[in-house]
Amino acid sequence: MSAEVVDSNPYSRLMALKRMGIVNNYEEIRSFSVAIVGIGGVGSVAAEMLTRCGIGRLLLYDYDTVELANMNRLFFRPEQAGMTKTDAAVQTLVGINPDVDLESYTINITTVDGFKTFIESLTRDNKRKRNTGGSKSGVDLVLSCVDNYEARMVVNQACNELGQTWMESGVSEDAVSGHIQLLIPGETACFACAPPLVVASGVDERTLKREGVCAASLPTTMGIVAGLLVQNSLKYLLQFGQVSKYLGYSALKDFFPTMELRPNPQCANLACRQRQGEYEAAKPARDLAARAKADADAAEAALASKVPVHDENEWNISLVDDDEGVAPLGVVAGQQGSAGYLPEGLLRELPDAEVFDESARTEEAFVKPEGDLDDLQKQLEALNAF
Amino acid sequence: MSAEVVDSNPYSRLMALKRMGIVNNYEEIRSFSVAIVGIGGVGSVAAEMLTRCGIGRLLLYDYDTVELANMNRLFFRPEQAGMTKTDAAVQTLVGINPDVDLESYTINITTVDGFKTFIESLTRDNKRKRNTGGSKSGVDLVLSCVDNYEARMVVNQACNELGQTWMESGVSEDAVSGHIQLLIPGETACFACAPPLVVASGVDERTLKREGVCAASLPTTMGIVAGLLVQNSLKYLLQFGQVSKYLGYSALKDFFPTMELRPNPQCANLACRQRQGEYEAAKPARDLAARAKADADAAEAALASKVPVHDENEWNISLVDDDEGVAPLGVVAGQQGSAGYLPEGLLRELPDAEVFDESARTEEAFVKPEGDLDDLQKQLEALNAF
Repeated sequence: MSAEVVDSNPYSRLMALKRMGIVNNYEEIRSFSVAIVGIGGVGSVAAEMLTRCGIGRLLLYDYDTVELANMNRLFFRPEQAGMTKTDAAVQTLVGINPDVDLESYTINITTVDGFKTFIESLTRDNKRKRNTGGSKSGVDLVLSCVDNYEARMVVNQACNELGQTWMESGVSEDAVSGHIQLLIPGETACFACAPPLVVASGVDERTLKREGVCAASLPTTMGIVAGLLVQNSLKYLLQFGQVSKYLGYSALKDFFPTMELRPNPQCANLACRQRQGEYEAAKPARDLAARAKADADAAEAALASKVPVHDENEWNISLVDDDEGVAPLGVVAGQQGSAGYLPEGLLRELPDAEVFDESARTEEAFVKPEGDLDDLQKQLEALNAF
Repeated sequence: MSAEVVDSNPYSRLMALKRMGIVNNYEEIRSFSVAIVGIGGVGSVAAEMLTRCGIGRLLLYDYDTVELANMNRLFFRPEQAGMTKTDAAVQTLVGINPDVDLESYTINITTVDGFKTFIESLTRDNKRKRNTGGSKSGVDLVLSCVDNYEARMVVNQACNELGQTWMESGVSEDAVSGHIQLLIPGETACFACAPPLVVASGVDERTLKREGVCAASLPTTMGIVAGLLVQNSLKYLLQFGQVSKYLGYSALKDFFPTMELRPNPQCANLACRQRQGEYEAAKPARDLAARAKADADAAEAALASKVPVHDENEWNISLVDDDEGVAPLGVVAGQQGSAGYLPEGLLRELPDAEVFDESARTEEAFVKPEGDLDDLQKQLEALNAF
C-alpha cells in the first residue's frame, strides 16, 4: 500500500489520512476481514466502500437475485438482473479493486444448513484475524445488512456463540429513517436483550407482509446508512474517533439520535448470558490493564512535557510570551519563523492581545491547586480505571 | 412511471413512497431539471442517486479526467481512467437509467468562456422548469459539488444573477467532516454574505497547495454528504419533510450540527443585494398568500373535524370512550373491528386504561380555554403569517 502522491496510485488519498493525523496505521486495513450479511441496498454499498478502502478480505452472504425493482438503490446495474446478488457483487467488486480477497456464500443463513455454513465460514481461516482475543471467529467484524428480524436473530445467535463483535443496520419500510448499532457480546445489549415487539411476541413476520404491497426505498437513505455503518467500522478497526453505540437517522428532519444499550441479565439468549458472565469475570484483568495504560500515559505525558510537541513545524507555529512584543497588524510574508508571520494576502481580523483589557489577566484570577498537579492527575486516572 | 409491484418495475419502491404517505406526488420527479457542478467524489454519487430516483433531466459540469487516485471514492471504475469525468459519468448513468435526459458540459466554469457556457446552459430550455416564478433559470435546482472556493464563488455569482436556488456541499481536507447548505438568493445568506477567511482576504487558494501533498478522502464521508445533499434535494423538489438550511457532519463523533444564515445587507455581491431588495419588496404579497393559506387550512381543518379521518381503516383502529368497556387482556384474533382486536400471537404489555389511577382524570385537572378554540387558532395563524 503506497502513500506516493501520483494520479495512478489508488491508495494515495487514503494514506493521506496518516499525514492529516486522523489514522496512525491506515495500511493495517489490508490485514482485516469483514463479513457482510445481506447484499441489498445497504450491504452492497457497504461492500463497495470497504473494497475501495482496500480492506483485506470480504465475506459476502445473500441468497437473493438482482431484480430491476432494485435499481432505485446504488450498486447493482440493470444488466445484472437475474444474477445472484453475491455473483453480481463479486463481478463488480473485483473490477473495482482486485487487491481484496472476496469470498461469497449464496446461502440463506436462517436455514439449518445455511446456519452451519455461516458458522463454518466465520470460524475458518481464523489465523487471518488480527486479534483473536478469546473469540473463535476468523473475522474482525460482522456487518448485518438484512431486511428482516429472523435473519437478524440468526446473526445475533452466531455472534453470541462466537463472541464476535458485529454491527447491525436497518432502514424503515417508509424509506425515511434508518439506524446502525454496535453489538459486543457480553458488553453491550445483544439483539435479543431488548427485542422488538414482533420478535418478543413470536409472530411470524412473513404473515405481516401483504400481497401487492412493497416497502419503499431510496438510494439516499440506503447510501447514508451504509456510509455511517462503514465509517463506524473503519473507526472500530483502525482505532480512531469514537465508535457510535447506536446512531439513528431520520430523513424528514435530519435528526440523528444516539443511545447506549446495556446487556439484559435476563436475556433469553443463553450464549448472550454466557458472554455476559465472561465479561464480568474479566473485570479485574480489564481494570489492571486500564491502570497500567493510565500509568504509561502519565509517564509519557511527563516525558512529553519536557520536549517540543512537534519536531517538524511546517506551519511555523510558536508560542510567544504575552509580554513579548508582537509584530504589528498587516505584517506579511518573508518573515517565516517569527511570531508575526502571516501568509501573503492575509490580514489579522482581531486586534493584538495587548489591546484587550489587562485587568482580566491578574494572577489572583487563577486559583492554584494545592499539591502537585501530576499527583492529582494520577489519582484521577486511577479512579477512572474502576 | 408505474407503481405496479412487480420485480421488473424499477420505480415500484419509489412509487411506494406515496402509499406510505411520505410523498404526495412522486411521479412529478420526471418533470424536474437539476444541474450538478463538479462530478467528483460527491457530485458523481449525487448524480447516480438522482438518476436512480428517475429525475427528469440532469446537467453535469466538470473539466477534469478520471484518475486511479479517484478509486477510493464511489462511482468511477478503474477502466474509466483517462476519460473525462463527464463522459465517464454519462456512460455509467445511461446504463443505469436511460429515462433520464443527460446533458454534459466538459468546461471549467471559472474561465470567462466557461462561465458564459454555464449561464447559457442554465437559462436555455427554461420551458422545462416547473415553476419559473420570476427566475431566468431553466433548472429547478443547482448542486455545487466542487472542491475549491473559486468555483463556489462562480456558482454563487451565476445563481445570484439568475435568482436560482442552489445547494452547496463540501468535505474537509482530512476527510472526516463535511456539510451541505441551502442558498436561496435574497432569502438566505449567499456564499459571499459571510465568506470564508481565505475568500475574504483575496488569497489565491492555489498557492496554499503544496507539492507532493494531497487531501485525504474516504468513500464513506463522500457518500454520506452526497446522500444528505440529494435527500434534501428530494425534500425540496417533492415538498416533503423539512429542508435543512445548513447541516454539518463530523465523522469522528457522529455529530451533525445545524444552523441558519441570514443574508448580509452589506454583502459584497451586487446581485445578492438586488435579490435581497426584491425579496424585501415581495413581503406584502408573501404575507397575503400566507394568510390566505392559513384561512384555507383552517377551513379545511374545520371541515375535516366533521368527517372520519380515514375512509379505509385497514388496521381497524377506533377510538373508544374511556367509560366504555374495553376487552380484557389477551383477547386474540377473530374479532376484527372490535376495540379489543389484536393480531394473532400479540399480547397487551400494559394494563387496561381502567386500571390506572382514576383520580388523575378529574375534570378539574384540565383548564378549559376561554372563548372558541377555532377563533384562537385563527388568531394564532394570522400572527404567524407576519
